[in-house]
Amino acid sequence: MSTVLPPKNPENDPRIKAVFDDIRTTRKTDFINNIWRYLAFDADLLERTWAEVKAVMATPSALDPQTKEMLYLAVSIINNCAYCVHSHTAGAKAKGMTQAQHAELLKIVALASKTNQLAVALQVPTDPEFLLEE
Amino acid sequence: MSTVLPPKNPENDPRIKAVFDDIRTTRKTDFINNIWRYLAFDADLLERTWAEVKAVMATPSALDPQTKEMLYLAVSIINNCAYCVHSHTAGAKAKGMTQAQHAELLKIVALASKTNQLAVALQVPTDPEFLLEE
Amino acid sequence: MSTVLPPKNPENDPRIKAVFDDIRTTRKTDFINNIWRYLAFDADLLERTWAEVKAVMATPSALDPQTKEMLYLAVSIINNCAYCVHSHTAGAKAKGMTQAQHAELLKIVALASKTNQLAVALQVPTDPEFLLEE
Amino acid sequence: MSTVLPPKNPENDPRIKAVFDDIRTTRKTDFINNIWRYLAFDADLLERTWAEVKAVMATPSALDPQTKEMLYLAVSIINNCAYCVHSHTAGAKAKGMTQAQHAELLKIVALASKTNQLAVALQVPTDPEFLLEE
Amino acid sequence: MSTVLPPKNPENDPRIKAVFDDIRTTRKTDFINNIWRYLAFDADLLERTWAEVKAVMATPSALDPQTKEMLYLAVSIINNCAYCVHSHTAGAKAKGMTQAQHAELLKIVALASKTNQLAVALQVPTDPEFLLEE
Amino acid sequence: MSTVLPPKNPENDPRIKAVFDDIRTTRKTDFINNIWRYLAFDADLLERTWAEVKAVMATPSALDPQTKEMLYLAVSIINNCAYCVHSHTAGAKAKGMTQAQHAELLKIVALASKTNQLAVALQVPTDPEFLLEE
Repeated sequence: MSTVLPPKNPENDPRIKAVFDDIRTTRKTDFINNIWRYLAFDADLLERTWAEVKAVMATPSALDPQTKEMLYLAVSIINNCAYCVHSHTAGAKAKGMTQAQHAELLKIVALASKTNQLAVALQVPTDPEFLLEE
Repeated sequence: MSTVLPPKNPENDPRIKAVFDDIRTTRKTDFINNIWRYLAFDADLLERTWAEVKAVMATPSALDPQTKEMLYLAVSIINNCAYCVHSHTAGAKAKGMTQAQHAELLKIVALASKTNQLAVALQVPTDPEFLLEE
Repeated sequence: MSTVLPPKNPENDPRIKAVFDDIRTTRKTDFINNIWRYLAFDADLLERTWAEVKAVMATPSALDPQTKEMLYLAVSIINNCAYCVHSHTAGAKAKGMTQAQHAELLKIVALASKTNQLAVALQVPTDPEFLLEE
Repeated sequence: MSTVLPPKNPENDPRIKAVFDDIRTTRKTDFINNIWRYLAFDADLLERTWAEVKAVMATPSALDPQTKEMLYLAVSIINNCAYCVHSHTAGAKAKGMTQAQHAELLKIVALASKTNQLAVALQVPTDPEFLLEE
Repeated sequence: MSTVLPPKNPENDPRIKAVFDDIRTTRKTDFINNIWRYLAFDADLLERTWAEVKAVMATPSALDPQTKEMLYLAVSIINNCAYCVHSHTAGAKAKGMTQAQHAELLKIVALASKTNQLAVALQVPTDPEFLLEE
Repeated sequence: MSTVLPPKNPENDPRIKAVFDDIRTTRKTDFINNIWRYLAFDADLLERTWAEVKAVMATPSALDPQTKEMLYLAVSIINNCAYCVHSHTAGAKAKGMTQAQHAELLKIVALASKTNQLAVALQVPTDPEFLLEE
């Protein structure tokens, strides 16, 4: 079903093993989900992608982990990535998203898509009030 | 620049005036931004769109107003609606989004788009662990 | 503003002149809109694109001209092509689209985008009833 | 396969039963397709979505039902919603779309996507002739 | 799974047979992949689509075949067409794309998507240096 | 026009100055284009983005620089980023893309978008021949 074959024994490669170990340590779980197993077809791509995910998503920052996962999920829905919609719905729930919050996220995503298309269809000019003053 | 002309004296139409009044009351401001002025070319479309925006975005709910605006902004970026990116960046700031949080939202949007495309390119199969049990 | 410069005297090139003449004859107007002037930077691209537009849009067929322009407009909105939204809003009006029909097209485009995103977000499985029997 | 579980006995909830009853009455069929069964995970989302679909798609208006379904289908194709492509291909056929019209819709969708991308790639400026005069 | 049924004995129709024969001759293989079998539900659509694919992709030109297939693959990833991602990954490999080049294509697609979204989110103005002088 | 204000004297910040210096050295030019001036509103975002662009685009690798820029441009067109279409058209030309190659890139992008939409509209099943054997 995939366009590359994931390595059969990925952790024989010390670069891949180091990334997988860091995923396990950072996430406090033994579960390595498929995106990492498939990215492992190229060690450099795997290392760089994980480094960025770890820095942005798994490091304390100006937004709380649940909000970050919900933003990731909203983007994944609009980009229409089925794998990502599954993994980040699970991720947002794991960070505390309730069913009511999930439903509300869906309402916002749906409403935003609707008004986005209306603004594009009408070619509405930007209000001067929204522009920044230098 | 737009594909419809907004009505010149929109509030002469009582249906439009009622919506504009409700926008002013709900948002506690005299500012009616352009999307509403252009949607006013069709009173039904204006009424329905505002009713939904009010219900989803301006009613206390399971998510706080800043998070809701940030989700709306993330969707607007991916849908590539310039008007909406401007209005919802302003909206999120008005609800409290700091510059650091803005930068972080951008990092998440950019990272999610990147991994979304990688998962699509690789056609990664969904892990059974992400599927719900009935 | 554009990424190629349109030829200054495009009709000096007989291949371009032949296309422009055919556009004028087919559409019964002297107006050659910009997309053709810019595509003229490559005569082959111009010829092939016009041949396809003529065959699909300017030849009597199973759908009436107004419906065809409205479908073209709907696609252009979702693909977010500002030039095309302008030209095909004008085109649909020229083929008879009323203001009420324009408003209705916008409602459908907005609603479809909304339910499209909901179905993606929920990963709704296709009903067996929708599948074709061989 | 989905990201939420549909309620097992949805019609035990009177709000959901009322929507399902209205779908059956409006469409004159006992078939409730999956999008409604999954949206039923949140009664408010179900009610609001159905109310809008009924108002826009199942109420006599300025466009005929077949044209409306074909516009919905065109948007669903570009938004790349597999579920929606299936359900609205079936819907358009049920409203009278012939195989020849289906093929023509596909030609328009494909051609529009092509010229949309060309106009974006060339950054073609909008002709003054397309702009509305105030 | 599809929205049209492919003809059962497509080559009984001489127009379809002519296209299939030309595909086999042009590609030097007996394999007719599914997109052609399904497009055969409308002979005109099949003929026109193949004629364009042959002219653009199977005719010696200013770009080498591998680069052309890689560009096709990059577009297919962003347009999120699963069928096309599979067929053009196979196509690019058949034209010589190595695993290292595949990984690099993925890095570029992912990086471009990331910076595309950042530029949209920031609404960065185009540098005058990028504009063409007339 | 933008949603953040670029710093007025960006190189007063040593982190920003280091990135700008590296851009100038790497590209052998004094020109710092706007995307970097606007990303400089957040030093971390600037540093990370440049590091990735430098690693992927400005380091000798399995693909030649012109092919890499053309892939970047193709993605930017489909993602519909006007800024990026301008900057990467310029970039590809600077790396050697001729006008004939530019026209051909456009033909491929347009054709791929067309067949992508047809495959989505038809929901064509993936041929077993395209699947990898384990």
